[in-house]
Amino acid sequence: MKTVKILSFVFFLAFGAVQVQAQRIVIPDLKEYKTLQCDFHIHTVFSDGTVWPTVRIDEAYREGLDAISITEHIYPVTSRRVYLQEIESQSNLSLKGISHNISYELAKPLAKERNIILIRGSEITCNTSPWHSNAIFLDNSDELDKPEWMDSFRAAKAQNAFFFWNHPGREKDQPDTTLWWPEHTRLLQEGMMQGIEVVNGGSQGYSADAHRWALEKKLTFLGNSDIHAPMPPFAPGQHRVMTLVFAKERTAEAIHEALRERRTAIYYEDFIIGEETYLKQLFESTLEWKIDKTDDGVLVTVRNKSDLTFRLKKTGSDARLVYFRNTAIIPFTIVPNSERSFTVRLNDGITGGDINFSVENFMVEPNKGMRYSVKIN
Amino acid sequence: MKTVKILSFVFFLAFGAVQVQAQRIVIPDLKEYKTLQCDFHIHTVFSDGTVWPTVRIDEAYREGLDAISITEHIYPVTSRRVYLQEIESQSNLSLKGISHNISYELAKPLAKERNIILIRGSEITCNTSPWHSNAIFLDNSDELDKPEWMDSFRAAKAQNAFFFWNHPGREKDQPDTTLWWPEHTRLLQEGMMQGIEVVNGGSQGYSADAHRWALEKKLTFLGNSDIHAPMPPFAPGQHRVMTLVFAKERTAEAIHEALRERRTAIYYEDFIIGEETYLKQLFESTLEWKIDKTDDGVLVTVRNKSDLTFRLKKTGSDARLVYFRNTAIIPFTIVPNSERSFTVRLNDGITGGDINFSVENFMVEPNKGMRYSVKIN
Amino acid sequence: MKTVKILSFVFFLAFGAVQVQAQRIVIPDLKEYKTLQCDFHIHTVFSDGTVWPTVRIDEAYREGLDAISITEHIYPVTSRRVYLQEIESQSNLSLKGISHNISYELAKPLAKERNIILIRGSEITCNTSPWHSNAIFLDNSDELDKPEWMDSFRAAKAQNAFFFWNHPGREKDQPDTTLWWPEHTRLLQEGMMQGIEVVNGGSQGYSADAHRWALEKKLTFLGNSDIHAPMPPFAPGQHRVMTLVFAKERTAEAIHEALRERRTAIYYEDFIIGEETYLKQLFESTLEWKIDKTDDGVLVTVRNKSDLTFRLKKTGSDARLVYFRNTAIIPFTIVPNSERSFTVRLNDGITGGDINFSVENFMVEPNKGMRYSVKIN
Amino acid sequence: MKTVKILSFVFFLAFGAVQVQAQRIVIPDLKEYKTLQCDFHIHTVFSDGTVWPTVRIDEAYREGLDAISITEHIYPVTSRRVYLQEIESQSNLSLKGISHNISYELAKPLAKERNIILIRGSEITCNTSPWHSNAIFLDNSDELDKPEWMDSFRAAKAQNAFFFWNHPGREKDQPDTTLWWPEHTRLLQEGMMQGIEVVNGGSQGYSADAHRWALEKKLTFLGNSDIHAPMPPFAPGQHRVMTLVFAKERTAEAIHEALRERRTAIYYEDFIIGEETYLKQLFESTLEWKIDKTDDGVLVTVRNKSDLTFRLKKTGSDARLVYFRNTAIIPFTIVPNSERSFTVRLNDGITGGDINFSVENFMVEPNKGMRYSVKIN
Repeated sequence: MKTVKILSFVFFLAFGAVQVQAQRIVIPDLKEYKTLQCDFHIHTVFSDGTVWPTVRIDEAYREGLDAISITEHIYPVTSRRVYLQEIESQSNLSLKGISHNISYELAKPLAKERNIILIRGSEITCNTSPWHSNAIFLDNSDELDKPEWMDSFRAAKAQNAFFFWNHPGREKDQPDTTLWWPEHTRLLQEGMMQGIEVVNGGSQGYSADAHRWALEKKLTFLGNSDIHAPMPPFAPGQHRVMTLVFAKERTAEAIHEALRERRTAIYYEDFIIGEETYLKQLFESTLEWKIDKTDDGVLVTVRNKSDLTFRLKKTGSDARLVYFRNTAIIPFTIVPNSERSFTVRLNDGITGGDINFSVENFMVEPNKGMRYSVKIN
Repeated sequence: MKTVKILSFVFFLAFGAVQVQAQRIVIPDLKEYKTLQCDFHIHTVFSDGTVWPTVRIDEAYREGLDAISITEHIYPVTSRRVYLQEIESQSNLSLKGISHNISYELAKPLAKERNIILIRGSEITCNTSPWHSNAIFLDNSDELDKPEWMDSFRAAKAQNAFFFWNHPGREKDQPDTTLWWPEHTRLLQEGMMQGIEVVNGGSQGYSADAHRWALEKKLTFLGNSDIHAPMPPFAPGQHRVMTLVFAKERTAEAIHEALRERRTAIYYEDFIIGEETYLKQLFESTLEWKIDKTDDGVLVTVRNKSDLTFRLKKTGSDARLVYFRNTAIIPFTIVPNSERSFTVRLNDGITGGDINFSVENFMVEPNKGMRYSVKIN
Repeated sequence: MKTVKILSFVFFLAFGAVQVQAQRIVIPDLKEYKTLQCDFHIHTVFSDGTVWPTVRIDEAYREGLDAISITEHIYPVTSRRVYLQEIESQSNLSLKGISHNISYELAKPLAKERNIILIRGSEITCNTSPWHSNAIFLDNSDELDKPEWMDSFRAAKAQNAFFFWNHPGREKDQPDTTLWWPEHTRLLQEGMMQGIEVVNGGSQGYSADAHRWALEKKLTFLGNSDIHAPMPPFAPGQHRVMTLVFAKERTAEAIHEALRERRTAIYYEDFIIGEETYLKQLFESTLEWKIDKTDDGVLVTVRNKSDLTFRLKKTGSDARLVYFRNTAIIPFTIVPNSERSFTVRLNDGITGGDINFSVENFMVEPNKGMRYSVKIN
Repeated sequence: MKTVKILSFVFFLAFGAVQVQAQRIVIPDLKEYKTLQCDFHIHTVFSDGTVWPTVRIDEAYREGLDAISITEHIYPVTSRRVYLQEIESQSNLSLKGISHNISYELAKPLAKERNIILIRGSEITCNTSPWHSNAIFLDNSDELDKPEWMDSFRAAKAQNAFFFWNHPGREKDQPDTTLWWPEHTRLLQEGMMQGIEVVNGGSQGYSADAHRWALEKKLTFLGNSDIHAPMPPFAPGQHRVMTLVFAKERTAEAIHEALRERRTAIYYEDFIIGEETYLKQLFESTLEWKIDKTDDGVLVTVRNKSDLTFRLKKTGSDARLVYFRNTAIIPFTIVPNSERSFTVRLNDGITGGDINFSVENFMVEPNKGMRYSVKIN
């Protein structure tokens, strides 16, 4: 294998006047955990992507991410032929002689300079079931390059990897229906499927099937960009698909621990997707409620100091509390960094009660928003 | 009544360096009609608003609107006491001696300068049924100042006004349920209710009840800002609630004709609300479809050259066409000024068929998106 | 005088769905002082402006200002006729019976609600020399309404007001040259001119004459919006003309103390204008410098965590340090929230020295940028 | 040499949901020429850049450019050693066996799809004088790979190339002073230097020396990005360094003709740099002037319908016309898509005259803005 000479940060800057504007999305910490913004599925020219590995660090820095993993394809022999040919024909790179660690090694010095947590990973790539899986927190990607895919998984497990099934609903792999295959059962039983991409930034997008499996089989919720091109400029309000990791501290080890304990949520478009317990904590960390008595009821003011959006719809409630009457179809939306008020009328002499609503875009099951109540006394 | 000395444009500019950035929202014309952007419900300090009438023209100019109507409250004696006291106490203006035409007269010279169509109107304001209605295309607002509300309506009708019911679902008026009152039946029968605010930018927002009545009773769809404060700065993508008028030309007369003929739609958040026939024409004027054959199906590319957003969901279709598989819950969204592609797989040897979908945010009934098909051969 | 019934915050919100996005410009504190963002010259419909007083609080809140003063015109009899007629004819308000305190009283409850420091002030308005002056930190504006302008000043002084000359270079008052009049000498001598508007957001803009007087006569630097219309939406990077007050704490008293001690600077377009001592402290609070040795010199990286821009040009330096060679005409610009690097070549075996430059937009004299040095060892 | 299999557009889209927002900067055409937005100096992974060639087309499409040239380094033997080693060590690509046409060939199909004019070019790279030059409008880059740099130029000339000197003021090449070398005289005499990069988006930025040479030696003005990294997201108002080509039509041939005839200007930050004749035409195509008589002079309103900025300063004028009095230091700035007014006072009974000013950021010589007059009658 070739020796890799590392591109230093300084060298690149010498080419010109690099200007970086960090624009971290504001998402608050939970009471007991830091909310880390992570992307665990990324490609470069060393598989079928179109940028150099250092670019991935520059992008992460610009967006204020905490951690990324560059996960080039590894091709077990059973499926190697198709993928390698395809990628080599695209890239004009002869990948045969190059270490599978190269992207990590090239990106690492800049990651350190930029204070991005870089996690070594690989995508174990089959063109039949079990399709694509990521193994991250590796020590050496080269050891995963085995003739049989199961041997790749085992080599990763020997390195104490964290595993997740990538884009289960991708039409290219499973064109008609998204199935759970015997190979997945086997991987699950052997501790080699701990998480699942409910959202993948490529052609899958959001998969309701993956969502259901994450809930039923207690898999960790993952949402990753699977970016191949340069990360495009975002319109205001847009962002990369990411996994929010609720970690004890901002370290690789703490992320690993949180992933194993399923303390994550997915941030996709304006949706937060995950286990209700964390969505509830995130909701409570984000919004401030102010309740003022008025002549015939109360005025409720919600202050949103984050970059998140909230879409509220009334759910069943004491009929004597009148509020959100026109939100059944178009929800009451609280945009980022804003405050918004609504009135609650108290009829028949009551002096308080519960304002019940669902948060449509905090999805706790496919198509089901998180329920929440605010008490008025 | 006092004589009004007109504020000239030049005078105001002399105070400082006014810079105006016009930012008209891009919404295409229909094949046979111009799409005019209008707001027919606006207040100033001459009722309970907080800006001078000329400010309303500056705002309309900045947003690139075609037409507005400033509609100060007129108080029939039966309800006058409450409203007038309330507003006078707020505004510290003694409104008694001032003509109801004052806002129109003060704003008119600047409207002419700025090429904004200014339509004279008033809000006939009752604090019992029939609540609030706008009469626009008036000749003289002062004639509407009558002791009985029905006389106000008749005076407006004598001027060939166009009438619509404002915010029928506003909780302040009808706190518990949105009812249709006998007075509305009477107004409808006498041709003094031709339209209805399905959306009002004040506390009502969107009203499903008003939406149903617009469809059932063949009322013109209206969406207006009902703005009292200065129009706030918009985040990118935000905009004022407006009525899109599909008019034969850009004149007050053509707007009046289009309103009578119900050729309108409402633009609210990212929703277009109205009769299906106009929504379909607008949809077809806005998107370009490109279909490329690939090895196992087709690649469909949609180009959106407008500032509108489209949220597509698959509807019932030939099972052999596989597309939009993961959009049942989170739709396939086409953001403004973008192009986006998706693949359609053709199974079992078929060579074409219909791609059926609904456009979730082109609402043709409460909670029902417009259905549409794109044919593939 | 009329009794003023206060507009409550709650009442206004009841009209609709108010959404406020606070967008405070990021300007760091100095080591020993808070940097407060203030505007001490503002009008409403109660003189010749076009908005209600509460609107001024909403605007200040949206922009994240710390303090404002609403300063309606007071007309000493010697010049009263012209101004009062002009304004009354515009506004259709009979201002005669209304207290000069009305704007303050109307705005105060909302200011308290929004945590904006509202300072009572008035603009003593003459249509000959000494032209217009603001007196702020008043107890009662009505006492300034005197037949002779000097009596107005004295009444303000009796209330311990802070005085400053407004827009000395305004062409409307002094059309051909900006002169210092005997009246100004007299006001200065009697302690009734402590500051001067070097920048006024109306037609004056920046006045080099006022800048020179501020330096020579030790007047406090003031830059205010003098806004009459609603504050317009800002393009990204634009902002209101404001006075930065370097205060011991965020209170009205601390602002008053800082104004008396001349601890201010002006923020106008991308310029900071004021005494060098404060500009230097602000510069040092804002930028972080990182110096890395390279093979033939050093790489200097500047990190700007503020919303300020910096335009650097090389000034005289040891010829053996080569840097900024192409910035003599188009400066080296550091945009907001960015970092940017440049190389310094060390010739003839030197190992360090001073990088000297001026900050073109930190103006310490008319057309003269602040000089600064960064030492390299 | 390897065979290149072309990456099809469709293939890439199949990876995911690509969304492209075209944001062409609005710069008007001249009366007789189209204003084409071009960048003739760009790198990819096939020299020392960090993106795949197709990415350069995606970027150009997103920015609405008309034409680009990808110009990888060609290394004449005399200087080959240093550059090739440096680049190969960075890129881990063995470039020896790869055609110098590869970037063009890989990018061409997507360029065609996207309607971007792709011009074949190479950068003839020496690490002594004449340093770096671009040759564009080539037929075959491989023929430029010669042991002696002059042979490289001759091979390009045989293909009827257009030549220009890149970043003459780059400190890396000429660290202390920017010199014109004998080699440049020779190239100029032999028709192998037709243009010069007055602005280069890399470390040079703007070079006053290059500016003077462009004027004195009648070289074509060029401003190019020299981008190596992915083009970063732009803050509003920012843009890539580009060459504006005033061409008879939007074709490669017409661009070639315009370059030979020196019909270009440079767009850098908010500066337009070039020959006065074209700057004047561009200025006149962009601004509309409206002149209204007032009581004591005129009100001039300037409407700017482009994305360009204009910074005006008064120049010597009839003293009886009073205008722009406070703009000597901070100019009168007209921001994009805006209109702005100023007053002109006419003293001593004159009824008209010339408003003279310079446009500071339309640079016709180093540090000299274009002079312009608007006549008032």
